[in-house]
Amino acid sequence: MKRSERLSAIVKILSDSPNQAYSLRYFCQLFDAAKSSISEDLQAAKQLLAKLEIGIIETTSGAGGGVRFMPYISNTDCLNLQNHLCEQLKDPIRHLAGGFLYTSDIMFDASLMKKVACAFARKFQNSGADYVVTIETKGIAVATMVSDLLHLPLVVIRRESRISEGSTISINYFSGSSDRVQKMSIAKRAVVPGSKALIIDDFMRAGGSVKGISDILTEFDIKIVGTGIIIVTNEPERKTIPEYYAFVYLGNIDENSKEINVFPNIHFF
Amino acid sequence: MKRSERLSAIVKILSDSPNQAYSLRYFCQLFDAAKSSISEDLQAAKQLLAKLEIGIIETTSGAGGGVRFMPYISNTDCLNLQNHLCEQLKDPIRHLAGGFLYTSDIMFDASLMKKVACAFARKFQNSGADYVVTIETKGIAVATMVSDLLHLPLVVIRRESRISEGSTISINYFSGSSDRVQKMSIAKRAVVPGSKALIIDDFMRAGGSVKGISDILTEFDIKIVGTGIIIVTNEPERKTIPEYYAFVYLGNIDENSKEINVFPNIHFF
Repeated sequence: MKRSERLSAIVKILSDSPNQAYSLRYFCQLFDAAKSSISEDLQAAKQLLAKLEIGIIETTSGAGGGVRFMPYISNTDCLNLQNHLCEQLKDPIRHLAGGFLYTSDIMFDASLMKKVACAFARKFQNSGADYVVTIETKGIAVATMVSDLLHLPLVVIRRESRISEGSTISINYFSGSSDRVQKMSIAKRAVVPGSKALIIDDFMRAGGSVKGISDILTEFDIKIVGTGIIIVTNEPERKTIPEYYAFVYLGNIDENSKEINVFPNIHFF
Repeated sequence: MKRSERLSAIVKILSDSPNQAYSLRYFCQLFDAAKSSISEDLQAAKQLLAKLEIGIIETTSGAGGGVRFMPYISNTDCLNLQNHLCEQLKDPIRHLAGGFLYTSDIMFDASLMKKVACAFARKFQNSGADYVVTIETKGIAVATMVSDLLHLPLVVIRRESRISEGSTISINYFSGSSDRVQKMSIAKRAVVPGSKALIIDDFMRAGGSVKGISDILTEFDIKIVGTGIIIVTNEPERKTIPEYYAFVYLGNIDENSKEINVFPNIHFF
């Protein structure tokens, strides 16, 4: 195999399996090449991705040494993505009765969610999380993509306990969005007590759901090491959780003009 | 930029956006290179991915011509993946009361689901589907990955209609798994009448849910052009839907020995 082919293959293999460690030996055997050649290829791959700002290749030396790909999005590309999302959200056709916005098409646009997930992955790359946690349903696509990019298991908290979940722990919480008490439920076997969780969700108003997730995880002595939400509303200003990262902010929706105020979180990174 | 770098960058960019068409002009501008050079690079990229059996690059010539990456998994890799999934499912710890299997950790293993989705994407690449459709909750991760790979919108049918979905159409259906009548609901604005849908789900026993999905889509005059399910049980032999592709089959679960019989669908491709 030619050097140029080897380089392309390495970039493809590594970036298809983000945050998964590969040994140099793996590539040596795959391409029947010397360790020194593979080292050079990896150095070239690293520089290329850094130059294009589309990924980071990290090599660790020593006996258990290896190489892994970490997703990356530049500040410029991130801001473009945030603006693109805002433009989509501004469409007055999304306006529903009661001040709600129709966002299902956006939250289940897998290609778009993969890009948003890349921003969350860059943000939380070093959070030390053992899991990504979300609550059904609309945050599952982005949380799935974040899980893939960080190579972490995804835990989906259910609204209702189901027989196929085995034994569960449930809590009731107040949801400001629906203005009523709701239930959430987590399978006992889904998590390990004492571990760390990264919360990813699609939408937050006062923070009732995220507070609920935090409370239910506390039952397992699980620490929250990060919270990323795609859309956070400006109102109420005071949220029930202390720290979170919004991708975009949603201001007031004018019921008459149907104008939707939404803007990027310029302090995301 | 060196030729080897250009080749790697093209492979990365195309495979990050599967089934999305790029013009040659895009790469010419990005790399400040002549059309003939980019054509050669694309030819090299095509041959490389074909040789490694990790993707197909398709070029269409003419005025609106362009290039796109289509995901691929070899028959051997697919069988290995099916066997890996079977091994995971066989673990007796998954056994729940009532003959149920705990599968949430597998269905939300994003990296694994990306690989399974690659098999579904190869299978349904030419189905002509306009959407991927699933029903909440456990099929959402794999359906998200299929949507990304085929670059199609994902429509998630909900168990309950929600105010944030706008106006919905609901049906009741009999679920053999839970042995009761259940409800499913779809947002009217999620689909276009007369279009085509690919159904992706995690589990099927008699086919009640999938039949329900099919029925609710019929309300919109939507044609089902393919159905892919990760786990299909052997019993009952007669399903309520005519055609589907199982990734693996689940035989009987011995309540005493806790032995779980599960095996790959060797006729998947």
